[in-house]
Amino acid sequence: MTDARGIAALAQGYAQGSLDPVDVARRALDQARAPGMDSVFITLLEARALEEARASQARWREGRPLGPLDGVPLAWKDLFDMAGTVTTCASDTRRQAVPAATDAPAVRALAAAGMVSVGKTNLSEFAFSGLGINLHFGTPPNPHDAAVPRIPGGSSSGSAVAVARQVVPCAMGTDTSGSIRVPAALNGLVGWKPSSARYDQRGVFPLAPSLDSIGPLVQTVADACLIDDALLGRAPLLRASTERPAARLVIPSGTLMSELEPGVAAAFEDTAERLAKRGFIVERRAIPVLDLAHHLFATFGTLVGIEAAAVHRELLDDPAALARVDARIVQRLRLGQAIPAQNRQALRNNRPLLVAAMTAALAADEALLFPTVPMAAPPIAALAADPVWFAQCNARVLRNTMIGSYLDMPTLALPCGTDGAGLPAGMSLAMATGRDEALLALGLAVEHELAA
Amino acid sequence: MTDARGIAALAQGYAQGSLDPVDVARRALDQARAPGMDSVFITLLEARALEEARASQARWREGRPLGPLDGVPLAWKDLFDMAGTVTTCASDTRRQAVPAATDAPAVRALAAAGMVSVGKTNLSEFAFSGLGINLHFGTPPNPHDAAVPRIPGGSSSGSAVAVARQVVPCAMGTDTSGSIRVPAALNGLVGWKPSSARYDQRGVFPLAPSLDSIGPLVQTVADACLIDDALLGRAPLLRASTERPAARLVIPSGTLMSELEPGVAAAFEDTAERLAKRGFIVERRAIPVLDLAHHLFATFGTLVGIEAAAVHRELLDDPAALARVDARIVQRLRLGQAIPAQNRQALRNNRPLLVAAMTAALAADEALLFPTVPMAAPPIAALAADPVWFAQCNARVLRNTMIGSYLDMPTLALPCGTDGAGLPAGMSLAMATGRDEALLALGLAVEHELAA
Repeated sequence: MTDARGIAALAQGYAQGSLDPVDVARRALDQARAPGMDSVFITLLEARALEEARASQARWREGRPLGPLDGVPLAWKDLFDMAGTVTTCASDTRRQAVPAATDAPAVRALAAAGMVSVGKTNLSEFAFSGLGINLHFGTPPNPHDAAVPRIPGGSSSGSAVAVARQVVPCAMGTDTSGSIRVPAALNGLVGWKPSSARYDQRGVFPLAPSLDSIGPLVQTVADACLIDDALLGRAPLLRASTERPAARLVIPSGTLMSELEPGVAAAFEDTAERLAKRGFIVERRAIPVLDLAHHLFATFGTLVGIEAAAVHRELLDDPAALARVDARIVQRLRLGQAIPAQNRQALRNNRPLLVAAMTAALAADEALLFPTVPMAAPPIAALAADPVWFAQCNARVLRNTMIGSYLDMPTLALPCGTDGAGLPAGMSLAMATGRDEALLALGLAVEHELAA
Repeated sequence: MTDARGIAALAQGYAQGSLDPVDVARRALDQARAPGMDSVFITLLEARALEEARASQARWREGRPLGPLDGVPLAWKDLFDMAGTVTTCASDTRRQAVPAATDAPAVRALAAAGMVSVGKTNLSEFAFSGLGINLHFGTPPNPHDAAVPRIPGGSSSGSAVAVARQVVPCAMGTDTSGSIRVPAALNGLVGWKPSSARYDQRGVFPLAPSLDSIGPLVQTVADACLIDDALLGRAPLLRASTERPAARLVIPSGTLMSELEPGVAAAFEDTAERLAKRGFIVERRAIPVLDLAHHLFATFGTLVGIEAAAVHRELLDDPAALARVDARIVQRLRLGQAIPAQNRQALRNNRPLLVAAMTAALAADEALLFPTVPMAAPPIAALAADPVWFAQCNARVLRNTMIGSYLDMPTLALPCGTDGAGLPAGMSLAMATGRDEALLALGLAVEHELAA
């Protein structure tokens, strides 16, 4: 058990009495207040955290913890309603919004498992970009390069950096076209985007309702499984068996493998080779439906843009409020608004067909394996200065992940070594919609073999 | 006028009295009967040809020809009904079919312009493959390689070879996913596939009704224009002006330019460079709708297969007849039959959207320029022997052209030099549906500049 990290290490410490939930919560709050963290956390929940930690402390002392998550600190992307706090969406327009009256069901579910909510994290304004750059709330720098400030990835930027800097072992994010998976990849973390219907999403500020998912950023797949259980309101499954699930890994030639940064490609190929050596069947073949989805967006636009413009319809009619929104976000909303009706119909009508085609394209024991993001984290400065490069880079970081969102594929974003310059690379394991349980089991096996 | 070829050369000879329609018809009939031509022509129409030629001869002698097509010999792919002859479709199952009672409207239209029908040409069985290989009626060898028998391309194989061997200056073909353009490319000819609604197609045996087009294989764009006028029943337009139509040529990066044989790519690039030097604006950019169509077929199957299976439904229920059909054609029909209902709907419902997207993707003065077929003509032997290679090669020769059929783009297939081994390469000029007149005008200008 010496290799326990993240949530598992804390739970072991609590069980053995070597760690205490209140100490751990205080340490997390201190770290969240440290210099340079103001772009990571928007709101700290000191009172709530200490109250929850004390209750957990009591349960552990009584030998009656709620489970392995009891006392584990946690942060929330600031799209989740938490009673008494403003859900800012990291937008200047919402600083004075009415505080939420109640916790979102997801917040209640993790609290019911004993978790300790220490704060709410920064994000791309309204979650509407994949880079993590935020004009008004600051951009949390990627912790993997101390010399050059690089993007954290987004939109769950603060959640990813909070976990990467080990303030908390888990932070919840949302993912509409890559907002959990992209920052997981760029920060060397595990990100879990389930099929969109898996968890209750009420009380979470929407970006594009038909595509939105929620899920955790964590350090290990085992931790993602614990969060999955808690969000479903069930006791932890005994999943981490040594039995290898029958699985073949399919590397999809075509769009998802095209135009990769050489360092990212090398890290990916190295990992794929290690998996093959560890006995996984790794094969490469075309999965045309993935390319079809990609070209559908290029031809007709994206559902994200269409639905986001609908969500923000009132904002788009309010010039005074709009003046307080990042011009790049406004432009993206306007582009979504301008997509013609027949293109919207094409994107909506094709989706169930493509989802079905994706199910048909993979055998029941097959998962896709591909680089989560085709590049490592680029420097912030050039992106902040150049709107064209911002748009191009945003499209590029989301290229692979947005296909999975449209096809509603459960996806585990996993770390995959580093590029030549020491920046994290990521890989995704994905299955057809609804196969979340099988994918998590496979993810545990992949994690186990890569750690061995 | 010393560079006149094809139809134009004959018309000049008739006008000057140096050629006579009856002599020309006899020469065509003699050539069509020569050794080695039995795989090119299925039926010779000696009586009809001589009767039509004599009538033309009389008109020219009276100085009252019907126009520049008067007395020009012509062959018809054996899908066109001609009164008193069997429309065999080059299928053994139709050798004893009831002869057609009347000429198809297209046949009547060219006869009304004075053209002389000398025979009916071979094709891929039921027009359902792009290679031109026919198990029962023979495969006309490509005239461009005397040493190694190579495919003529199909399905209008006999029509292409009849023109390439200069038996006739024009042969009519049909094109459902490339059946005019592919053999034009592989034989160094001009092939004209109009928007599907341009000509009356009654009396032409269908392959896939929503995709079928008819059009000529000829030696020059100028000749294609003359046939266009006659099929529309109008007097020849004065199109061959020296005025260059405002036009930009867009080379679409992506599918259509991918995986080209090096010799074909070199011939194409050389021609594109010559066009740029002659003052055409040549630009390269992505046209995502083309890639979208390609991936739609890869994901859902092809409309051709679906519609062909519907056309041949009775045949597919008749084991005795099926036993007389090439097994490769039967397999293709069965594959079309097996396409699930939701895939059919996807292919049908997307088509108008993609056609509209194609119109939006090009400015009014823009035409696509791309290699008609990604390869030169392969040898017949290996294809005849190996059904898997047959299927792969068939998909490859039709890859670019079938996109144009789905998008209903008028397309001129033009010669484009030769690959390193002296085999013809072809290039296509294509515009959005309905822009046939503009495309023919552009084709004349391109032909003029390349000849200069």
